[in-house]
Amino acid sequence: MTTILGYAAQDSSKPLAPYRFQRRAVGANDVQIDILYCGVCHSDLHTARNEWKNTLYPSVPGHEIVGKVTAVGSDVTGFKVGDLAGVGCMVDSCQSCPSCSEGLEQYCENGFTGTYNGPLFGGENTFGGYSDAIVVDQKFVLRIRHTDNLAAVAPLLCAGITTYSPLRQWNVKPGDKVGIVGLGGLGHMGVKIAAAMGAHVVLFTTSPNKREDALRLGAAEVVVSKNADEMAAHVNSFDFILNTVAAPHNLDAFLGLLKRDATMTLVGVPDSAHPSPEVFGLIFKRRRLAGSLIGGIAETQEMLDFCAEHNIVSDIELIDIQNINEAYERMLKSDVKYRFVIDMASLAKDQDAA
Amino acid sequence: MTTILGYAAQDSSKPLAPYRFQRRAVGANDVQIDILYCGVCHSDLHTARNEWKNTLYPSVPGHEIVGKVTAVGSDVTGFKVGDLAGVGCMVDSCQSCPSCSEGLEQYCENGFTGTYNGPLFGGENTFGGYSDAIVVDQKFVLRIRHTDNLAAVAPLLCAGITTYSPLRQWNVKPGDKVGIVGLGGLGHMGVKIAAAMGAHVVLFTTSPNKREDALRLGAAEVVVSKNADEMAAHVNSFDFILNTVAAPHNLDAFLGLLKRDATMTLVGVPDSAHPSPEVFGLIFKRRRLAGSLIGGIAETQEMLDFCAEHNIVSDIELIDIQNINEAYERMLKSDVKYRFVIDMASLAKDQDAA
Repeated sequence: MTTILGYAAQDSSKPLAPYRFQRRAVGANDVQIDILYCGVCHSDLHTARNEWKNTLYPSVPGHEIVGKVTAVGSDVTGFKVGDLAGVGCMVDSCQSCPSCSEGLEQYCENGFTGTYNGPLFGGENTFGGYSDAIVVDQKFVLRIRHTDNLAAVAPLLCAGITTYSPLRQWNVKPGDKVGIVGLGGLGHMGVKIAAAMGAHVVLFTTSPNKREDALRLGAAEVVVSKNADEMAAHVNSFDFILNTVAAPHNLDAFLGLLKRDATMTLVGVPDSAHPSPEVFGLIFKRRRLAGSLIGGIAETQEMLDFCAEHNIVSDIELIDIQNINEAYERMLKSDVKYRFVIDMASLAKDQDAA
Repeated sequence: MTTILGYAAQDSSKPLAPYRFQRRAVGANDVQIDILYCGVCHSDLHTARNEWKNTLYPSVPGHEIVGKVTAVGSDVTGFKVGDLAGVGCMVDSCQSCPSCSEGLEQYCENGFTGTYNGPLFGGENTFGGYSDAIVVDQKFVLRIRHTDNLAAVAPLLCAGITTYSPLRQWNVKPGDKVGIVGLGGLGHMGVKIAAAMGAHVVLFTTSPNKREDALRLGAAEVVVSKNADEMAAHVNSFDFILNTVAAPHNLDAFLGLLKRDATMTLVGVPDSAHPSPEVFGLIFKRRRLAGSLIGGIAETQEMLDFCAEHNIVSDIELIDIQNINEAYERMLKSDVKYRFVIDMASLAKDQDAA
């Protein structure tokens, strides 16, 4: 057992604060990682504040982890001390169901174990990446091929794979016209990755002032989705649309832009329902509305390698962990371009406090 | 020009009654068909009563047509006088857009011409199969390989292809677990066709008294969808669900029964929206909600041949055309097993009336 320093919410109304807990000793298949950086995902906030009504406290969030290997078990083959390593949203799954057998651990029929708040899916509570170190089975540890800007690599472990996986699933290829709805933590990764796949990327936003940023990130066009004329110009023209907006909104406005047989995939879960999509729009063009959840471990590795090859990282604002509660408030106002990442070296300031 | 006797609605509040109109002379590519039987689709009623707010009057419904060829144009190659022939929901399309080029005339980018109420999609008004004869371009005429029970073949032209096409589109194969929601005109064809494709068919109904019929038609199991325990036994188990119910209903109850990556296709357009489906259910199993509209001409021929080979026809109640208005009232009460078909010989009784 190792004593760990992290930041935890003790209940839904309390700010995150320093917290000491134990991690297991390094087992034969385990990799121990000193955490250098941890991205801040909106799910962290939902969980810390029990907005999904399933939080076990104390809750240590964080599932966009990049760090350095400090110990490996006797059966670990892919990592050695000193390697860079990443951990995403999952730290375990049953490894025996059809989904796990196909490398789709995120759809484990028995429920994967989340990197934090693990008991949702069975097992003991798990503590995430807002902490100085983590111990993870080698099957759930990713290789990092990026050599610099490591803080900006961290968000790939959730925001990156959440957008990469549906783009691959629906076979986005060079020349395809791909829409990305929303320019936030997920959307800005979607733009970068789809553009790197060779797609003609159209970014949909409600904020005209995001136009320049979207073009800089790789969008070929920007459409202000509140502008009916701008929208109408794109009817029946998209090969695929990735919708990253979790706030309830009119899906038909985007479904109507799909070509026949094309798909819009949702990756955000709204707090209350979207207005019901019109069946007419699905039937008369044989369109599809789908969902997608992060990605499997093999696909996450593929995404990291793809991003390293294409020099893709997240656009981030680096913060000290002492500012995490303020960062949450800014996230709620969408006041971040486009992901907060915690510099875990800042935890040293709390070594005497907790 | 030929004078035709049919039945037409003169406006939305009037019953259908005898009506004489003209059809074009047989052109070089035309096939003239004496109509033997015409199925009664719910769309006929919607159109006759202007429930879709797009009806041009007078309106002669009917798009499930089986008859005998009485004349062919000089360039017609596939039909000769005396052949059996069928006409479905379309009598023309642009023949040049990507969808037409792929044989998917039902998704014609320029709008196909419906067998009746054609101007919805451009061109002159068209008059459908509640009539003694029709003249149709050879590209939209189907070959009928069934040799008897021709009245029961007629509904294949709409109800048959509407269910066959999505079953094929989503690659239903022997051993697949396939759900059919609703046992009406569409649903009973879905059960027969999916069973003939080798699927394990589960029929969902709100009416426990449809159980025996569903089993007779080819369902392996029947689930009363209002029974939560019966539904729960099928969670995450379906390869495909074909939902034929047009009345607004809770889609999540069925989406939750799909396996990972599986699809539920809707073929009915509700008058008011279904309750909005939960995004969570789409995301956590990467499920898909889709739509489908009839089928292309080549696929309709494939369906007719498949049904002839597997000895599939519709379960019908044969009526005289003089009873069409009463039949509409009974359709509204779902009092039909499972499709009314008009015996067009009955039109003779009106030869002096109109």
